[in-house]
Amino acid sequence: MTKNVLILPGDGIGPEIVEQAVRVLDQVNTAFSLNVEHESALVGGSAYDETGSPLPEVTLAKAKAADAILLGAVGGPKWDGLDMSVRPEKGLLGLRSNLELFANLRPAILYPQLADASSLKPEIVAGLDILIVRELTGGIYFGQPRGIRTLENGERQGYNTYVYSESEIRRIARSAFEAARQRGKRVCSIDKSNVLEVTVLWKEVMEEVAKEYPDVELSHMLVDNAAMQLVRAPKQFDVMVTGNMFGDILSDAAAMLTGSIGMLPSASLNAEGRGMYEPCHGSAPDIAGQGKANPLATILSVAMMLRYSLDSKEAADAIEAAVSNVLDQGLRTADIASEGCTTVSTAQMGDAVLAAL
Amino acid sequence: MTKNVLILPGDGIGPEIVEQAVRVLDQVNTAFSLNVEHESALVGGSAYDETGSPLPEVTLAKAKAADAILLGAVGGPKWDGLDMSVRPEKGLLGLRSNLELFANLRPAILYPQLADASSLKPEIVAGLDILIVRELTGGIYFGQPRGIRTLENGERQGYNTYVYSESEIRRIARSAFEAARQRGKRVCSIDKSNVLEVTVLWKEVMEEVAKEYPDVELSHMLVDNAAMQLVRAPKQFDVMVTGNMFGDILSDAAAMLTGSIGMLPSASLNAEGRGMYEPCHGSAPDIAGQGKANPLATILSVAMMLRYSLDSKEAADAIEAAVSNVLDQGLRTADIASEGCTTVSTAQMGDAVLAAL
Ligand SMILES: CC(C)[C@H](C(=O)O)[C@@H](O)C(=O)O
Ligand SMILES: CC(C)[C@H](C(=O)O)[C@@H](O)C(=O)O
Repeated sequence: MTKNVLILPGDGIGPEIVEQAVRVLDQVNTAFSLNVEHESALVGGSAYDETGSPLPEVTLAKAKAADAILLGAVGGPKWDGLDMSVRPEKGLLGLRSNLELFANLRPAILYPQLADASSLKPEIVAGLDILIVRELTGGIYFGQPRGIRTLENGERQGYNTYVYSESEIRRIARSAFEAARQRGKRVCSIDKSNVLEVTVLWKEVMEEVAKEYPDVELSHMLVDNAAMQLVRAPKQFDVMVTGNMFGDILSDAAAMLTGSIGMLPSASLNAEGRGMYEPCHGSAPDIAGQGKANPLATILSVAMMLRYSLDSKEAADAIEAAVSNVLDQGLRTADIASEGCTTVSTAQMGDAVLAAL
Repeated sequence: MTKNVLILPGDGIGPEIVEQAVRVLDQVNTAFSLNVEHESALVGGSAYDETGSPLPEVTLAKAKAADAILLGAVGGPKWDGLDMSVRPEKGLLGLRSNLELFANLRPAILYPQLADASSLKPEIVAGLDILIVRELTGGIYFGQPRGIRTLENGERQGYNTYVYSESEIRRIARSAFEAARQRGKRVCSIDKSNVLEVTVLWKEVMEEVAKEYPDVELSHMLVDNAAMQLVRAPKQFDVMVTGNMFGDILSDAAAMLTGSIGMLPSASLNAEGRGMYEPCHGSAPDIAGQGKANPLATILSVAMMLRYSLDSKEAADAIEAAVSNVLDQGLRTADIASEGCTTVSTAQMGDAVLAAL
């Protein structure tokens, strides 16, 4: 049976990194007879420029029909002045929400070959392997009411709503516990239950769901402490699970601990395991079009896609091995450049992965 | 004229660290003829245990009458099961809000003597000196409506409201710009304006207020990026200004960069410069009563109090010099213990500061 992958290059460095990732997808498709077909569509700022919408109808329809989606990145200063409703980010948020991609898996892994790239001391991060499970379709990102209103005294007031229902918390809890079962069997749930009622409910539901997973250990940590512990001793964590906003902040901090956010893929899954795959990094408009960007996070996102949505574990393993191989060869894009290594361009890195496959 | 200081030891290690800080206050009071008087009151879990309220009326009345407040810390697992309305944290939040202590100043400074304590590479943090200005009486901490309700379908839903009005943003902006004027003249405002409307207003008001401070440079950064940049290259920042929730997370991350959160004081000021002073760290119930806690953050909080609320710059300078002196002597409490240094108790550290004064 044919599997349909939708390719969404997006903005900034998106197109150039996605180009290399698609070459890799094509090669494993042939090598492993995967029967994958793909087509592209517009999203984000480039979609807005062409159609007036960051998530055109045709893109959304294709996304709904696809077995998996590969996204580059969206956004850039060019669109900063736009109204919130048509900003590039709305394209991304619209995809997440319309496809109910509620489970965002963000691994923070330190590649031994890149240990030097971290700003942390080697002993603090050597062997780091955390998985952050972030709720992606609820919380304050989507809560209503929201907006900016004018008060009776004439001054403006901005407001957003941080909201979670039991069922939303329950399903992300299950994603985290399932993921922990495949790993270190420990889940740390992050909340601010000493201040925010919504996270009191979060904590309670986590406890309830934990009963279904007696083989997995559940602990709780306040978000401010979690931010500290990530800096102090990140290896204490196995799986961290948290809401949309805290997950946005903590997953970026965790990714940066590795010093090589250009290496980190992510998956956003719905209840059926269909998903969208994208690098953890952003659209890096400052280096767009210069052939400098690191395509490895996007290439590794293809590996995640093969594993989680396309049921092709071997092809995923092969890609991950090829990436490790090019790092062993000493090839580095500018973001992870290091003395004694060869700095290569986006396309050269793509070439090297293809050759290693 | 007599100046009244209210001492709130609080919970956990609070009483033991405050005890040392009060000794220091008493000594500079005499040495510099400051005319400071002080009395104590209950707050937090210990207040709840005695009176049924984490912020008894008499404590609040004394706090309102005081020229400055010195607080240890509140909270602990003992009170975790309590209803939100009487948790120890409500005592702290009640003080902040009733006294309108909207401007929370949290310096993250790396003491050269403690450079090794950081989990970051020395070159990343050497000379680190950031000031985080956190809005403390608004945002999602205090926003209404809030709570946990049952939906029509029978499931529970938790909700909180993230809200800021122009005037709230304007006054914390001014605090940040004023502080930057005394330092590196750069303010970085942290928001999530690509998703949250309330922070779109935040960003706009920051721009407006910036016009009053042409000598200070204003930049903006998204909160997820800020969390990354703190890990990657924290020295890029001078003053960071942000809302209550983001400030809670980022200031703790920033404090932990130094590796010695036991060293960091904080000030929470109202419009008249009256304030509450407390260490950045928490109540550390696991080591309470063992004489292990580091009193230096609380002692340095006394210095901040003298500088900001009691108009005694010389006494503040003297305390800070004494703290630096004991570090030079190689004295360390357990949290900052290091090879070749002498590990001392809470009281011994207090003794050493008194001797150095
Ligand atoms: C682009 C932005 C809306 C997005 C988010 O905040 O979720 C990004 O930061 C991410 O983490 O994927
Ligand atoms: C104890 C808690 C309510 C408090 C906060 O979240 O503000 C603390 O973490 C702090 O930062 O002072």
